[in-house]
Amino acid sequence: MNVTIRGQTRHHRTVTFDVRHNAVLLIEQRLLPHEFKIVATRNFGETAHAIKDMVVRGAGAIGATAAYGLAQGALAFRGSNLKKFTGHIDTVFQTLKAARPTAVDPVNAMNDVRNAMRAGETVEEQQALALAEAEEFANEDVRHCEEIGEHGAGLIRNGMKILTHCNAGWLAFVDVGTATAPMYAAQAHGRKFHVYCDETRPRSQGATLTAWELAQQKISHQIIADNAAGHLMQRGEIDLVIVGSDRTLGRTGEVANKIGTYTKAVLAARHKIPFYVAIPLSTIDWNLKSGFDIPIEERHESEVLGAWGGPVSLKSKVQNPKPGRGVYVRVANPTSGARNPGFDVTPAELITGIITPAGIFKPRELWSRRHELGFKK
Amino acid sequence: MNVTIRGQTRHHRTVTFDVRHNAVLLIEQRLLPHEFKIVATRNFGETAHAIKDMVVRGAGAIGATAAYGLAQGALAFRGSNLKKFTGHIDTVFQTLKAARPTAVDPVNAMNDVRNAMRAGETVEEQQALALAEAEEFANEDVRHCEEIGEHGAGLIRNGMKILTHCNAGWLAFVDVGTATAPMYAAQAHGRKFHVYCDETRPRSQGATLTAWELAQQKISHQIIADNAAGHLMQRGEIDLVIVGSDRTLGRTGEVANKIGTYTKAVLAARHKIPFYVAIPLSTIDWNLKSGFDIPIEERHESEVLGAWGGPVSLKSKVQNPKPGRGVYVRVANPTSGARNPGFDVTPAELITGIITPAGIFKPRELWSRRHELGFKK
Repeated sequence: MNVTIRGQTRHHRTVTFDVRHNAVLLIEQRLLPHEFKIVATRNFGETAHAIKDMVVRGAGAIGATAAYGLAQGALAFRGSNLKKFTGHIDTVFQTLKAARPTAVDPVNAMNDVRNAMRAGETVEEQQALALAEAEEFANEDVRHCEEIGEHGAGLIRNGMKILTHCNAGWLAFVDVGTATAPMYAAQAHGRKFHVYCDETRPRSQGATLTAWELAQQKISHQIIADNAAGHLMQRGEIDLVIVGSDRTLGRTGEVANKIGTYTKAVLAARHKIPFYVAIPLSTIDWNLKSGFDIPIEERHESEVLGAWGGPVSLKSKVQNPKPGRGVYVRVANPTSGARNPGFDVTPAELITGIITPAGIFKPRELWSRRHELGFKK
Repeated sequence: MNVTIRGQTRHHRTVTFDVRHNAVLLIEQRLLPHEFKIVATRNFGETAHAIKDMVVRGAGAIGATAAYGLAQGALAFRGSNLKKFTGHIDTVFQTLKAARPTAVDPVNAMNDVRNAMRAGETVEEQQALALAEAEEFANEDVRHCEEIGEHGAGLIRNGMKILTHCNAGWLAFVDVGTATAPMYAAQAHGRKFHVYCDETRPRSQGATLTAWELAQQKISHQIIADNAAGHLMQRGEIDLVIVGSDRTLGRTGEVANKIGTYTKAVLAARHKIPFYVAIPLSTIDWNLKSGFDIPIEERHESEVLGAWGGPVSLKSKVQNPKPGRGVYVRVANPTSGARNPGFDVTPAELITGIITPAGIFKPRELWSRRHELGFKK
């Protein structure tokens, strides 16, 4: 999407490839929202590090980064020995996979690239196919997000006030995003609306990333404390909720997403406000039979006990456990601990619809219409 | 309640009076939870400043501070001219009232003191009566909180997990508190339980003040992000909710309290978890006919856009708009704004019971049993 730096507006993807320098170009997301910077990884090892160190995050974005990283590793190979080349590709694959071992997107993306390479008979042919497939993976990610946008844009009418939670925006994908895609599409259609961004404690992705995105795209918005949405709904000031999803159960329509999503769905149901979840097909889990089987990660308590703030000149004595995220300050009582579940599960009954690249589905239709949604097996 | 400093445990009230030095002693609440300090105001002007500058906050605590401040002003008077003395008392009264013009507690407390003084025929007698009535006001505040504790303690059984929001603890009163009172009483009865403190963004009173109180009282507790309560309720990890109230409508049973309270009540109702509100009688509003008539203060957006953290050694360049609260860091995107409603209104249907010094009432019983609750008119 567009980014404006010192009055200059340019279009950026989160991940692109520089063929001339065999480099992956990434938005350094750890500096946002306080600084915008593109970094180049010069080899697949640096690309793996960028994934591991959270320079890039979000399902689609790390998938594309891994796909480009595999192509980068392939292109760096010198010689024409196909057996040595294949061994090298295995090393690259394992290195990139190990950068984020629990994520499924990098592995899926790299499998696509590796499968495409098989059509080549020489090292050179396989190298060219690797790059072409990585580009295709990134382009398809963008296309799917645009399709989500077009399907979802119809929900947004002039003058609406829309609530979103966390960041399921273009920074989490190659471009456009999922929860934000209908907003960008509606804006392109000339509609005017206002977005409330939940701060999304403890990591504040709404206040930092989503608000930054909307500001760059010049969409009218305000940040609210996670505590405020109920009050705004009660006073009739929210017309529509759109969120993303980390995992959607194809069999039940349940949605696992950032902690606090469930609360917003409960509030929306009470106030009869439509609650939509925008998802790429890759997040649908066709196996699990109940949301209670989704493991909920307990994250480090320091996230709840303090906050990261904007760039400040500091001499010393300030804790800074996450380089690039600014200053960490301890907010809470120093002798208290915290619990920090990272995700929660929203049941199908609270979800008005699921916006996919293939259209908008009722949550319980996912299973009956699974063949429209890429179900395999 | 108890405070432990370097291994020494002592009982403290938030507000006391030092007769020998004619000083009001206050816990410097702006330093909590990072530092515990008692400050002495040497005259009624300093006492007014302490109220205005938030050294002391909370309905009961500022009421008692104003009552003591009026006595302090009375005791500082030299001479026996009753007319001059009465004029002086008016000045003291107006000075203390102006320190927090929207609060009702200081005015009510000072009226009690002034009425009690009328029984005295000399300056000296009136001075003595002023101090005695201020002490009585403070003691009554404590007694009422203890009664809330005894009535509410019966709700807390061994092994329970209790959620509370914001700070309605002893720091907001002279001692004991309201939402925390049942917890302290249950602890005194030997019961074991665990408390989840909502962080309570944007000002984080749960993470700072409530967590500090519970830690000092050695009550098992953890802080959670405001987003996490819904998930914990869904997984059966919360058995009871107790919160305080800024204003309770006697005619409807509606409760205005810190932003986010309504959300917790909606979640509790969905999960059939008892939701109680603990209140002193002074917060009951017998006039308003609807919660929608309660004006909801919009507070400054900087609260939502950043956070205050613990004491850090800093050289420069760090904003610090609230002296004593530590370092302010900007969390949110620098070009985004915020909305910041400070309170919300919870309807009677979501409230299981209202814990008062006179017993536990159904919200809709407040009006029919108003004569047990100090209704006048």
